[in-house]
Amino acid sequence: MDLREIGEFGLIDRIRKWMAASDAAVIQGIGDDVAVIEMAGKALLVTTDILIEGIHFDRSWIDPYRLGKKALIVNLSDIAAMGGNPKYFLISLGLPKDLSLSFISSFYRGLKEGTRKFRVDLVGGDTSLSQKIVINICLIGEGRKKNLLFRRGARVGDDLLVSGTLGDAALGLKILQTKGLMGGPKGLIERQLSPCPRIQLGQAIAESRFATAMIDVSDGLLIDTTHLLEESGVGARIWEERVPLSRLYRKWIRSYSKDPYQIALCGGEDYELLFTAPPETRKKISSLALSLGTPITRIGEILPQKEGLQIIREDGKKYSPTRLGFDHFK
Amino acid sequence: MDLREIGEFGLIDRIRKWMAASDAAVIQGIGDDVAVIEMAGKALLVTTDILIEGIHFDRSWIDPYRLGKKALIVNLSDIAAMGGNPKYFLISLGLPKDLSLSFISSFYRGLKEGTRKFRVDLVGGDTSLSQKIVINICLIGEGRKKNLLFRRGARVGDDLLVSGTLGDAALGLKILQTKGLMGGPKGLIERQLSPCPRIQLGQAIAESRFATAMIDVSDGLLIDTTHLLEESGVGARIWEERVPLSRLYRKWIRSYSKDPYQIALCGGEDYELLFTAPPETRKKISSLALSLGTPITRIGEILPQKEGLQIIREDGKKYSPTRLGFDHFK
Repeated sequence: MDLREIGEFGLIDRIRKWMAASDAAVIQGIGDDVAVIEMAGKALLVTTDILIEGIHFDRSWIDPYRLGKKALIVNLSDIAAMGGNPKYFLISLGLPKDLSLSFISSFYRGLKEGTRKFRVDLVGGDTSLSQKIVINICLIGEGRKKNLLFRRGARVGDDLLVSGTLGDAALGLKILQTKGLMGGPKGLIERQLSPCPRIQLGQAIAESRFATAMIDVSDGLLIDTTHLLEESGVGARIWEERVPLSRLYRKWIRSYSKDPYQIALCGGEDYELLFTAPPETRKKISSLALSLGTPITRIGEILPQKEGLQIIREDGKKYSPTRLGFDHFK
Repeated sequence: MDLREIGEFGLIDRIRKWMAASDAAVIQGIGDDVAVIEMAGKALLVTTDILIEGIHFDRSWIDPYRLGKKALIVNLSDIAAMGGNPKYFLISLGLPKDLSLSFISSFYRGLKEGTRKFRVDLVGGDTSLSQKIVINICLIGEGRKKNLLFRRGARVGDDLLVSGTLGDAALGLKILQTKGLMGGPKGLIERQLSPCPRIQLGQAIAESRFATAMIDVSDGLLIDTTHLLEESGVGARIWEERVPLSRLYRKWIRSYSKDPYQIALCGGEDYELLFTAPPETRKKISSLALSLGTPITRIGEILPQKEGLQIIREDGKKYSPTRLGFDHFK
């Protein structure tokens, strides 16, 4: 048996069984994007993400400045989805011998811009020779234990909500890969190259205490919804027509897909926040969205686990998606 | 200009200038193997190491079980060299699609054995597709601020001391690469494949408070001594004949090098502890070595910075080494 057969998430399930943590201070171990450890009364948050050239990015469509910034941002988004406060990070770099110093200094300028904007500090790392560029960031944050949100926690009857719009980053990638940097509108391409982590929104949602579970949409709406449902032991219904799409997405999707929703449902890297909350908090959520200037859309509802994940089409027909989104090993 | 010209350590110097941390809680940022952050009165220790197939290891000479264990151990050694207590880690894995599940489960069995033996917990990670196997571990530990040892701190007149024996791991690698797993004595080969981090010794040295600076010998004696000297702003003299060599090393080095010291001075991965302490603590150090059953050898002395690093040969002749050891990019 090889990785193709079990897939990325089959592997993670196995690792979880093999490696269960024994320390009582581990509030959240394997099974969320962020590990939570109790330390001197505080919650220490730790997350890690690896980016590999040819898999996650290609030097033909991303410049080193944006690459540096994005490497940090994908980690910041994980801390945002827990409602935490990002603080420090370490970066491991695998670099080809013939890489120019100007590439590396641009990469670090982008990283530096990210540290300034999101108030985090680089505290260490490791460098190595590598055939392909490899970037691994480990980000440390902190939070108040009682405010933190996890993938687990969603309850039957909760609303399923998402911030911003979906599909832009994945459509931006398609444009980059087929037509290059000038092949489409900046609005979509920048969603792919320079995503914005929803740190402030995540913290506001966590502090307001009305949400029951949260995750960031990094792998794609359907796959990340599935993660949330599995950890919470529930099912859900999503109304396709409610999935928030940007004006640019609506215009450009026609050139890439007959189904206007497919990329918004399965494409990743939007780094929006997906969360659940009981219906009686709708008013509070609306005023939060208004005060932060970030749209929040109710796209579905939480059902009992036996209902699985159901998508309701515009014509009212229901289907259960089989291919959820991206799996590294399939 | 490319990486070959500035080298690994030239790159790290630049990164340090570009990215200086601004947070007052950062006790030690870039410039040591471990970052130290003050958190709720405790010292949080964080270190990261990346291992890349074809660069750090080869599947032809290391099995997945030992690889998993070693990936953890190289990080444990960094925490040991600070006198810290390792606690939690995250692992990022880049894996080829066709890798067998049995390879991965052996890898995790090795990792698990490491977690049991050294009492640490896996709390999270990331997985990705990759052409070559990539392993990045980020290890978190804790320590008491006043006991921690850094690369900086060595003073003129201090003794330079090292634990165990040097060169075994690098000679073991040479045997593995030229003759394979059965090509030499288990004692040398296992030093390469299953190194042992000096956690207990590191903690004992830190708690005894007689040492002034410490580092682990991972890149090689000369290069790691240079790191310690640079951070401390001092020079040093090492007596070649005092460098501790194992019986097996002395026997097998003859087949690989005319100079019996070259590999012991420049080869890496011994994961012994190199530290400095004032001469008046020699008695205490002897009794510590005796009580832990770990040999500690005085191999040199700290000089003023202008003296640089001097090696004194058996015949009394002095030289300043030009090629210190392994640089990833040179």
